[in-house]
Amino acid sequence: MKTRLVENRQTANYHRSGRTDKGVSALGQVISLDLRSKLIGAAGSEGGPASEETPADRAPVSEELRYAHILNRVLPADIRVLAWAPAGREFSARFSCLHRTYRYYFPGGGLDLGRMEAAARLFEGTHDFRNLCKMDVANGVLNFRRTVLLARVRRVLGPDQEEEEGRREPGSPYGMCLFEVRAQGFLYHQVRCMMAVLLLVGQRLEVPSVVTQLLDIHSNPRKPQYSMAVDYPLVLYDCAYENLEWVFDSDAHAFNVTHLQAMWTQQAVRSQLLYSFLQGLGQAPHKLQADDGPDPLRDWGRAQPPQASQADSLLEGVRPRRYRPLMERERCEGLESRIRHYAKRGRIELPEGMREEEEEEEGRVRRKRRASRDGENGLAE
Amino acid sequence: MKTRLVENRQTANYHRSGRTDKGVSALGQVISLDLRSKLIGAAGSEGGPASEETPADRAPVSEELRYAHILNRVLPADIRVLAWAPAGREFSARFSCLHRTYRYYFPGGGLDLGRMEAAARLFEGTHDFRNLCKMDVANGVLNFRRTVLLARVRRVLGPDQEEEEGRREPGSPYGMCLFEVRAQGFLYHQVRCMMAVLLLVGQRLEVPSVVTQLLDIHSNPRKPQYSMAVDYPLVLYDCAYENLEWVFDSDAHAFNVTHLQAMWTQQAVRSQLLYSFLQGLGQAPHKLQADDGPDPLRDWGRAQPPQASQADSLLEGVRPRRYRPLMERERCEGLESRIRHYAKRGRIELPEGMREEEEEEEGRVRRKRRASRDGENGLAE
Repeated sequence: MKTRLVENRQTANYHRSGRTDKGVSALGQVISLDLRSKLIGAAGSEGGPASEETPADRAPVSEELRYAHILNRVLPADIRVLAWAPAGREFSARFSCLHRTYRYYFPGGGLDLGRMEAAARLFEGTHDFRNLCKMDVANGVLNFRRTVLLARVRRVLGPDQEEEEGRREPGSPYGMCLFEVRAQGFLYHQVRCMMAVLLLVGQRLEVPSVVTQLLDIHSNPRKPQYSMAVDYPLVLYDCAYENLEWVFDSDAHAFNVTHLQAMWTQQAVRSQLLYSFLQGLGQAPHKLQADDGPDPLRDWGRAQPPQASQADSLLEGVRPRRYRPLMERERCEGLESRIRHYAKRGRIELPEGMREEEEEEEGRVRRKRRASRDGENGLAE
Repeated sequence: MKTRLVENRQTANYHRSGRTDKGVSALGQVISLDLRSKLIGAAGSEGGPASEETPADRAPVSEELRYAHILNRVLPADIRVLAWAPAGREFSARFSCLHRTYRYYFPGGGLDLGRMEAAARLFEGTHDFRNLCKMDVANGVLNFRRTVLLARVRRVLGPDQEEEEGRREPGSPYGMCLFEVRAQGFLYHQVRCMMAVLLLVGQRLEVPSVVTQLLDIHSNPRKPQYSMAVDYPLVLYDCAYENLEWVFDSDAHAFNVTHLQAMWTQQAVRSQLLYSFLQGLGQAPHKLQADDGPDPLRDWGRAQPPQASQADSLLEGVRPRRYRPLMERERCEGLESRIRHYAKRGRIELPEGMREEEEEEEGRVRRKRRASRDGENGLAE
């Protein structure tokens, strides 16, 4: 749930923890900004900007303005404030964040979860992720090294399930799974690119070690062309901070839960309905009931080849008829080329090392032109 | 999946099994109509309307036009032909239907399923359902007696569940349930009205015997005012016929399954995402993982009163602050009053019994007016 509250971000000292794309959700989004306070300021005064005081000087937070309640009344229904915390002047939701965790939910049908888990683990550690993001050179992003603290793939348990010893049989193709990844910071579209590669691995179109190849920017300085995963299954799940004392609001909470349960109901009922259609076509398990009549469609459907295409729709774009392995595909423009492109247009400054190269290259070009001109004028050696 | 294929229903001999409202789905919808055929007609001719021949005269149906394939190519994505069957001239999808089965899916949270099941059983049998439908007198529906062959409420199992002996503990509030009802024919909005009453019973706002009261049209000739259940969880699940040999199409089937799985994926992922939000707020069970960090929001949320409002959003309209028992509410206009209303306007004919009453009443009114006029003229006795 993103919160964009103020017009003038500069004077409000507004910072946000995560930048999520249009179709991406967030449970753990955090913003920081200056708000008026009932408690902070000289005794008896109106109160001033909350960030001028340190937490130790405050009156009990239960006496403070009910920020969650006040804000939720003016926010759109799909953006909800869950809690607030007092913070010092130096605090920034963006720069004080210890790490961020994203989750990507997907159905396990037709996918090799073991391979996906192996591939995911290869993402852990400090790597250059230029081949697993959309490079944002125009906005000055020139360093693609990031440290992934955690990258896991696992099944999730549905509402009625409890994990019991001995019940480790592979789940139904309609069971839900999740890719969870944690880092201090992420590049633009990084998680969706990582997920796209994991889906190709899960579909057995690539082997897990393709991740190692993509992270090897010396052998592979330019990114193979591939579509990223779709946006809606992605959620910014958690952003971690130190020394924040969160203040919750029971009424706001109750309202949020009611609202979320209503939304969940709509989605869950619709997916149950569609699941029942797939049962009716013999493509999902169906437990016979005493009252069930004969069902020629279901019986015939059962005899057809089982289809496990649930995850196919999670990759953007059209699927080509014949699969092309990632490493055999056309490559995108490399980093250096993009840097020069934007430096020429004055968008960014050329980095040190490239400036010297650039001057050498210009010198060579000048000398070549002169030689060519001299040649035409009969002055060549 | 409704199918509306032809402009001129009369000449095409078009009949449909079930009439579903805008937001209602169908897996078992059946239509009948005349189609051109590759096989029927004089040997060597183009073929004529398929219904002119009896099934016994036909060439093998595998040689026939691929109706499912042909139609699906021109239908919108959310309407799919699943199969076809040859039928004799006298067949009508509407009048030859033995019975129709509807399903209404709903989450069990906060609902007493035992009471709902008891109430549902009371619907079975032959009853006058005028208090459990939207009367459609304007279109000539004057008889509200229908026979409900089956009315059940039960939990459904999710994709990863198998029913095992001894595992009969009450399901999670996020587990899905279903109301299934079968009858030869249904009145307008009947299932949604029945479901509304079942939801009130499930919420313990009414007792199961309220069904008996609603079916007792002598004591309760006029329907209490109540909202029906929302449309999207309802599906026309099955329509039963005799002596139909369904012909399936493997390619059409494969395409339908792929399409349905993609749709299921979108809904299922979104509902899993929302479920994870509810877990994050401590309002749904969460199994701790090794990598889980501290979660003050979830811990605090767990200590709040649990909310099981999942099914609240299934009743149309706004909930009043104080609940009014059905039998204490305002009543809608009764059947007789509606009949007179539409008969006056020439929409329908007055039934026999009411015509005599009407004439008696008119006689009384005329005599009263005459007496009053005579009185004014000084001619009264």
